[in-house]
Amino acid sequence: MSTLRFALAQIDTCVGDLDTNAAKVLEYSRRASEHHADVVVFPEMTLTGYPIEDLALRATFRKAAWDKAQELALKLAGDGLGGLYVAVGTIGTDHDNGKPRNRMIMLHDGVVWGGYDKHFLPNYGVFDEFRIFSAGERSKVFEINGVRVGVAICEDIWQDGGPVAKLVKENIDVLMTMNGSPYEEGKTHVRFDLACKRADELQAPLLYVNQVGGQDDLVFDGGSFAVDYDGTLIERSPMFMENLSYVDIDTDKTHQDVSTVAPVPNSDEEVYTACVLGLKDYMAKNHFTGVCLGLSGGIDSALVAAMAADACGGEHVQGISMPSMYSSDGSKDDAADLAHNIGAGYDVQPIEPLFKAFQQQLDLQSVAAENLQARIRGVIVMAYSNSRGLLALATGNKSELACGYSTIYGDAVGGYAPIKDIFKTKVWQLSRWRNEAARQGMGIGGLHIVGNEDGWAGKQVEGDIIPVNSIVKPPSAELRPGQKDSDSLPEYELLDKVLEAYIEHAHGRADLLADGFDEQTVDTVMRLVDRAEWKRRQYPLGPKVSALAFGRDRRLPVTNAFRE
Amino acid sequence: MSTLRFALAQIDTCVGDLDTNAAKVLEYSRRASEHHADVVVFPEMTLTGYPIEDLALRATFRKAAWDKAQELALKLAGDGLGGLYVAVGTIGTDHDNGKPRNRMIMLHDGVVWGGYDKHFLPNYGVFDEFRIFSAGERSKVFEINGVRVGVAICEDIWQDGGPVAKLVKENIDVLMTMNGSPYEEGKTHVRFDLACKRADELQAPLLYVNQVGGQDDLVFDGGSFAVDYDGTLIERSPMFMENLSYVDIDTDKTHQDVSTVAPVPNSDEEVYTACVLGLKDYMAKNHFTGVCLGLSGGIDSALVAAMAADACGGEHVQGISMPSMYSSDGSKDDAADLAHNIGAGYDVQPIEPLFKAFQQQLDLQSVAAENLQARIRGVIVMAYSNSRGLLALATGNKSELACGYSTIYGDAVGGYAPIKDIFKTKVWQLSRWRNEAARQGMGIGGLHIVGNEDGWAGKQVEGDIIPVNSIVKPPSAELRPGQKDSDSLPEYELLDKVLEAYIEHAHGRADLLADGFDEQTVDTVMRLVDRAEWKRRQYPLGPKVSALAFGRDRRLPVTNAFRE
Repeated sequence: MSTLRFALAQIDTCVGDLDTNAAKVLEYSRRASEHHADVVVFPEMTLTGYPIEDLALRATFRKAAWDKAQELALKLAGDGLGGLYVAVGTIGTDHDNGKPRNRMIMLHDGVVWGGYDKHFLPNYGVFDEFRIFSAGERSKVFEINGVRVGVAICEDIWQDGGPVAKLVKENIDVLMTMNGSPYEEGKTHVRFDLACKRADELQAPLLYVNQVGGQDDLVFDGGSFAVDYDGTLIERSPMFMENLSYVDIDTDKTHQDVSTVAPVPNSDEEVYTACVLGLKDYMAKNHFTGVCLGLSGGIDSALVAAMAADACGGEHVQGISMPSMYSSDGSKDDAADLAHNIGAGYDVQPIEPLFKAFQQQLDLQSVAAENLQARIRGVIVMAYSNSRGLLALATGNKSELACGYSTIYGDAVGGYAPIKDIFKTKVWQLSRWRNEAARQGMGIGGLHIVGNEDGWAGKQVEGDIIPVNSIVKPPSAELRPGQKDSDSLPEYELLDKVLEAYIEHAHGRADLLADGFDEQTVDTVMRLVDRAEWKRRQYPLGPKVSALAFGRDRRLPVTNAFRE
Repeated sequence: MSTLRFALAQIDTCVGDLDTNAAKVLEYSRRASEHHADVVVFPEMTLTGYPIEDLALRATFRKAAWDKAQELALKLAGDGLGGLYVAVGTIGTDHDNGKPRNRMIMLHDGVVWGGYDKHFLPNYGVFDEFRIFSAGERSKVFEINGVRVGVAICEDIWQDGGPVAKLVKENIDVLMTMNGSPYEEGKTHVRFDLACKRADELQAPLLYVNQVGGQDDLVFDGGSFAVDYDGTLIERSPMFMENLSYVDIDTDKTHQDVSTVAPVPNSDEEVYTACVLGLKDYMAKNHFTGVCLGLSGGIDSALVAAMAADACGGEHVQGISMPSMYSSDGSKDDAADLAHNIGAGYDVQPIEPLFKAFQQQLDLQSVAAENLQARIRGVIVMAYSNSRGLLALATGNKSELACGYSTIYGDAVGGYAPIKDIFKTKVWQLSRWRNEAARQGMGIGGLHIVGNEDGWAGKQVEGDIIPVNSIVKPPSAELRPGQKDSDSLPEYELLDKVLEAYIEHAHGRADLLADGFDEQTVDTVMRLVDRAEWKRRQYPLGPKVSALAFGRDRRLPVTNAFRE
C-alpha cells in the first residue's frame, strides 16, 4: 500500500525576512510531523517572501537565502524532523546566465535536494517575473514512499503546455503546487475550475497551497485546497488566515478521502476582510502598532476607521476631526459617533484659524482655497503620525482616485490607503455589511484573519458601528458652502459603472456609447480619468481587491496625449 | 550604380499624440525630400511615441495608430512625397494572440508596407517591453533602388543572435536601425562601440537613428550616427535637439563618404542639458508654461532654478523664499541674488506666523516640528502652483532621496524633480559648470536643446548665475538652530561614493567593506537607504541621467525586511 500524508501549510511570509520565514517553516513542520504528515508543502517563495521584485537581483540576498535554506535543512534534522519531506519555495540562480530563478526545494535528511524551477513567468498585471527570473525548463517528479509526486509553481498551471503537460506522461499520483496567487474578488472559483482541469489532464489529485497575508499592496487570501482527479473537492482551507491541514493520498484508492472543507465567506465579507488583512499586515511588517486618520463624518473615513479598528483594535486608532467653517454640525456629530462606536481616540482640531493665517498671506480663491483646506488637514494628520509614530491612513476610494477628485498632499496623504481599490458604491455596500455583521455578533477585531483564530467575536458594539447618517447623506467634500460631489462628478451609481467599463474592461469611447452610457457622461469621465494619471502615481499603497487596481496593474505614461 | 540617400530624422515625439507625431513625420519627410533623400528614417515607435507602457494594451489606441499610419501614407502621396520611402515606428498587433507588437512600417506610394517587428524585447531597468509586446521572429530586407537595406529596432542590436545575426547571410548593403535609447551618462561610447561590432559582423554600414526629448522621467539624447563597416564614423547628429541629416550609401564605393559630424558636449554639459531638456519637454507635453519653487538659498534649489530658467526663461520662473526663525540672513540674500541673476519672480513668504498658528494647536517637538516647517512650505508652493497654473518643482537631489533625508509632503512636493537623479557632489559640480559656461557666454536659455537652435546665446548674465556662497557653504536644512546635514549624514564626498557602490553597483555589505569604506559609515548608509523605499515611491517624476535612477529602474518591496 502506498499512502502519503500531505500537510498544506498556508502561511504568511514577509519579503526579505529570511529568519522569520524560516522559523515559521520549522514551526509548521513540527506541527505537521506531530500529525504524522510525510510531506509538508509551503507556498511559493516561502523563505524569501513573495513578490520580491528587484530584491531578487541582489546577489547578497540570493546568497543569504541559500545559506538560510541549508541552515534550515540542518535544523529540521537536528530537531528530529529529518524524515519529513519539507517542500519550500526560495530563490535560485541560473548557472548559465546568473539570473535568479523562482525555485522549489525539498528539505530532507538535513540536506537541500535540488528541486524545480518555475517555468511560466507571469509578466502582466501585478506580475514582473519575466523581468527578474529566468525560466526553468525541466519537469520534476519526486518518488516518496512509492508515491509519484509531481511539482508545479503557480503560473505553471495557469498556462497550457510546459512542465505540467509533460507530467501527463510521467504517470504521477499527485500534483503538488505552491502558489503566491494574490486576492481578487471572485478568484476562488477561477482557481478551482483551473485546478479541476489540470487534475483531469493528469488523472491525478492536485494540491493547491497558497500564501496568505498582505504584502505591500497585494493581499494573498490563502484558500488552499485539494481536488481529486475527477473534480471532487477533498480539502479547502479557510481564507485570510494561516492554516495547516492534511490530505491523505492513497494510491490504492479510486477516490481520495475528503478532509476538512472550510466555508467560503460571502462577497462583501471577502472584500472587507481582504482590506483589513492588507492593512493589518502592512502595519505588522512595517512595525506600526497604531494608525491616525482624519474623520470627516463622511462614509469613506468612517469605513476606513472601522477597518482599522478591526485590524488593530479601536484603542490603537486615533481619529482627528478637522472641521472648517464649511463643515456641517451633522458631520461633526457623525465623526464623533463613529469614533465612539469603535472605541477610537478622538481629537478635534479646527482648521479655521490655520486657514485664516494662510489666507492672510496668500489670499487664495476657488479651487486653490479648497485645496488649501485639504492640505492643512494633511499637515495635521502627518503631525500626529510623526509625533506619535502612527501610520497615517489615506481614506480615498477608487472612484475619486480614478477621477482625480482629491487634493494631492491633502486628503491623499498617508502611508497606506485601505480603500483605494474600492469604488464608492461598494464603500456604501461594505459599510452596510459591516453594520449588519455587528448586529450578528461580529465585534471590533472579530474577523477571521491571521493572528485571530477566535472567529466572530471581538469587542461587541451596541447598535451600528458606522452611523447611518454617514451612509445615507449625499457625499460632500465640504470645502465650500453647499458643495456636493455631484457638482463635479456624475452620480456614483452611474460613475462607477462607467469607470468599471472604461478602466477594468478597457472599453473605448465607442464601446462605452454602445454600452448605453450617454455621450456627455462618457466624455466627462474619460477626460477626468485620463488627466488624473500623475495624481494616482503619488497615491499611497493600498490593497488590491479588484481585477484592476491603480498602482500595480496599470502603468500609463503621464505625458500621454491620446484622446479618443 | 546603386546609391541611396538616407535622411536620419532625429525627432521628439509625444506618447499618445498621434496627430502631432504624424504631422512631424510629414514635415521632416518634406524637408528630406527637398534635400533629395530616397529614404527617411525615424526613431522607434515614431507615431505612438515611446515608451508607451500599458497604453499599448488599449485596443482603441492600436486602432487609432493604425488608422493614422494609413492616413499619413495617403497624405505623403497627396503631397507629392509618394516616391520617398518613409520608415516609421508604430504599434502593430500579433495576429496569433492579439498582443501588441513594436513595429517598423514603410510608407511609400500612399501605402503602408508591411514591415518588421522588434525581436528582442527588453524587460530590465526602465524597460517593460516583454510585458506589453509579443516578439517578432522574421528578419526583413528592403530592396530599394538596387540597395539591400536591413532593418533592426533598438534592442535587436544589443543582443547577440536574432534577426540581425540572420541578416549576415542576406548580403545587405546597409543596416537601418530605429531607436528609443534613453540617455545615461557615458552611453554615447557604448552605443558607438556596439554599432561598430554589428557593422563588422554584417560587413555593412549601420545607421543609428535615435529619439530625442524628454518623456516623463526618461530623456532621450538623440546623438544619431552612422558608422561604416570598418568602424569609421560617417555621420553624427547633435545631442539633445531635433535634427535632420543625410548619409549617402553608394554600393560601388569601398568606403562611404563622411557627412556631418557634430561635436560631443563634455560630461557636465551633457548631464545638465539632459536635466533641462527633461524639464522643458515635461512642461511642454503637459502644457505648463511656467514653474514655481521654493528658494532656500541652498545649492539644490539654486541649481534647479537655473535649470528651470534655461528650460523656459527666467521670466517664467517664480521663486518663493520662505524663511523661518532658523533661516540665516546669508541664505535669504543668496536666494534673492539667485532670483535676480536668472530674472525670476521672487516673493518672500515668511513661515513663522503659520508655524506659530500650528504650534498653538499641536505643540510639536523635534523632528515633527522640523517636518511641520517643511510641510508649511509645501502648502505654500502648491498654493502658487494651483492659483497660477505653475508646475511646482521639487528640488531634492539623489543623495537625500536615497537616504530619505527630506520631508514627504514637505520639500518633496512638486510635479517634477529635475535633480532627483543627481548626487549632491554632482549638484555642486554642475553649479560650478553652469557659472563657468555663463562666463563663456552661455546666457539664460542658451543651451543647444530642442526648440532652440541658436546655440550658446540666451539672455546674458553679469557675473555668476549661482551665488558662490550657495556653492561653498556647508549644506543645512535650517530647520533648527545651527543644523547641518552632516549632523545626520556622512559628509557628501564620502556618502555619494558609498551610495554609488551600494545602489548602482549593488555592492553588499561585505563588498562595501572590501571597497575600503569604514563599518560605521556602511551600516549607517545601508540602514538609511533600506528604510527610505516608501518615501522614494512618493517622489515626483524626474529625469533619469544615471545607470540607476530611483523610480524607473529599482522596484523594491516596501515591506522588505532583508538586512545584511
